Amino acid sequence: MTKPIALLGSTGSVGVTTLDVVSRFTDRFEVLAMAAGRNITMLADQIRRFRPRLVSVATAELADDLAALLGKDRDGVTILHGSEGAIAVATCPDVSLVVSALVGALGLSPTLAAIRAGKDIAFANKEVLVIAGELMIRAARESGVRLLPVDSEHNAVFQCLEGRDRATLKRIILTASGGPFRSLDAARFDTITVAQALRHPTWNMGNKITIDSATLMNKGLEVIEARWLFDVTPDQIDVVIHPQSVIHSMVELVDGSIIAELAVPDMAIPIAYALAFPDRLPLDHLKPLSLIECGGLTFEPPDLDRFPCLRLAYGALREGGTMAAVLNAANEEMVAAFLDRRAEFVDIARNVEAVMNRHDNGPVGNLEDLLTADEWARAAARELVGSAPAIAQT
Amino acid sequence: MTKPIALLGSTGSVGVTTLDVVSRFTDRFEVLAMAAGRNITMLADQIRRFRPRLVSVATAELADDLAALLGKDRDGVTILHGSEGAIAVATCPDVSLVVSALVGALGLSPTLAAIRAGKDIAFANKEVLVIAGELMIRAARESGVRLLPVDSEHNAVFQCLEGRDRATLKRIILTASGGPFRSLDAARFDTITVAQALRHPTWNMGNKITIDSATLMNKGLEVIEARWLFDVTPDQIDVVIHPQSVIHSMVELVDGSIIAELAVPDMAIPIAYALAFPDRLPLDHLKPLSLIECGGLTFEPPDLDRFPCLRLAYGALREGGTMAAVLNAANEEMVAAFLDRRAEFVDIARNVEAVMNRHDNGPVGNLEDLLTADEWARAAARELVGSAPAIAQT
Repeated sequence: MTKPIALLGSTGSVGVTTLDVVSRFTDRFEVLAMAAGRNITMLADQIRRFRPRLVSVATAELADDLAALLGKDRDGVTILHGSEGAIAVATCPDVSLVVSALVGALGLSPTLAAIRAGKDIAFANKEVLVIAGELMIRAARESGVRLLPVDSEHNAVFQCLEGRDRATLKRIILTASGGPFRSLDAARFDTITVAQALRHPTWNMGNKITIDSATLMNKGLEVIEARWLFDVTPDQIDVVIHPQSVIHSMVELVDGSIIAELAVPDMAIPIAYALAFPDRLPLDHLKPLSLIECGGLTFEPPDLDRFPCLRLAYGALREGGTMAAVLNAANEEMVAAFLDRRAEFVDIARNVEAVMNRHDNGPVGNLEDLLTADEWARAAARELVGSAPAIAQT
Repeated sequence: MTKPIALLGSTGSVGVTTLDVVSRFTDRFEVLAMAAGRNITMLADQIRRFRPRLVSVATAELADDLAALLGKDRDGVTILHGSEGAIAVATCPDVSLVVSALVGALGLSPTLAAIRAGKDIAFANKEVLVIAGELMIRAARESGVRLLPVDSEHNAVFQCLEGRDRATLKRIILTASGGPFRSLDAARFDTITVAQALRHPTWNMGNKITIDSATLMNKGLEVIEARWLFDVTPDQIDVVIHPQSVIHSMVELVDGSIIAELAVPDMAIPIAYALAFPDRLPLDHLKPLSLIECGGLTFEPPDLDRFPCLRLAYGALREGGTMAAVLNAANEEMVAAFLDRRAEFVDIARNVEAVMNRHDNGPVGNLEDLLTADEWARAAARELVGSAPAIAQT
């Protein structure tokens, strides 16, 4: 029997790879619903190939354009839009697994709706767990659904823990490539340009996440995700810099054994694992990892002085409440400002910390509390950027 | 409730570490029976500390000496000797797990007896599986007992496979330190001295196994063990040279994920895991592995031209029948001859191969077939050594 899935974010990188995996295992999966943003050309192609019952796009206008684009190929496909449309996709009847890959805070409501509707979640949206990890986990426990991580690091941890008694877990060790500035002298951080920051050594990703990798905020956000996904304390999560990114992450068990997952840097592996769990699919189209061709694998401690974002993320996690949402929102604004040349690289951490220091933290009752904190933090970060002098950058 | 265990080989390195683990978890384990060889001084101490019901030593004379040594401390301890004594220890009533750590072919009959008596086996005797893997596995299936590997490599594989569907296993990757001659030029192999061969880079072990590490025969024997322990074909077992010995071994799964176990080189970890399985014990007395202090981890393919023993082991495994027993016996004789300066380092592989070529291979009906092949191969190897001119070595 095929597993009926819904895909939030079908035209993004994770969405495209998910559909590639589905197309290789049509006897196993069926896509019943898809939500995308603005890329209706790609979405129209996906609809023709996968014939979902239901799709959703960002706006009513895009929905009309999509209908026109599809013409008679629309036959039998319901087209919705906006937040309500995404929630309809996430809660589509008969679907048992929802891939949550909408970018940013957009994924929050649909993912929570999916959990409450009893769907298992394949998590590929970092922000959902960073902003609302506590809420999501609470809802998942109530609904009895599975949370399956798609991020390569968390998927690695999940694989390492598979079949083991959780009580034997001592610590999670997330690996980080260290980004392009791993070896850069502290004194030169205020000269970093956007072009330099966009050169990631191992993974080819979007701009936002590439900058987050350069500041190590990405790893900080992953520490927060790991806390919720694996129900551990912040002290049980360590980060080690591993420039080759061959070991995707590790767990240390109570007897001192460390279990690691290694693989080629291809998102098909974690996506396929999350889709098929508890099964594992033969991915014969991938080139196997050759440790001999890897050269050496090296490890360094992260430098929290040069990369304060990682320290800030641990701080936000320890503070709890809405602080992680504030960290995330302020960081998004600062990364956007840096990419627009309205802020320097070092301003990212500096202003995130300033916003966090000004935040009046409180407990999380519902999604609204988090969205309010998110909005406040964005405004606070924008204010800090706006008050700074304009920047000339090469 | 404590797990009642019997220990075959209590005064060897694995035996001593096993008793150290037991002494740290007296609420979990109880030693009901122990067999040792000739070290009755140490055995007497162990009897006083662990109060087994039953012990066995190599000979009747040693049994008398032990009784004299114990004096009134003997109270309640039955002392046996010889093969019958070891078998009595292995089949001691109430025991549920037997640690098989007697050195060499001595372990064969008691281990088989233990399996047939329905005891789970913690395997620390390489030869038992190399010589009689097929027999042992067949017997274990019939008795429904568990075979738990203690060797660090196989224990690592076992840990990596824990809780996974065996159908998802693609290949086992055994790591090898490469020994002291990993980088030695092929032309210089005929100058290798005993002193050089005894310098193992990472593990501190007995002389026989250290020489086997230098020839890579040790890894060859482990390939044979892995075939039986994990029910895979020879083609599913790869060897990679990993000089740092931090990764103890790995498995590759059907989706391309590689799961690895890493740890400090302390036998307490695999021993404790085998003893407590399916539980995992907190070994807080061990220093945790620090990847940062490891420096780099490197990997190389094994060179079958300089290290033909590994090739011979694969050959013996593919041939089946009594060939692995012949390989093992000829190797033992050749290593002894090398350690006695009666043979050169390169003679080990050369003569093992010559003996294998002369062997009239056949199917394995019972232990006798294997012991006959073993004896024949020893005699054949001794003959080859005896016919060679005497060696002067520095």
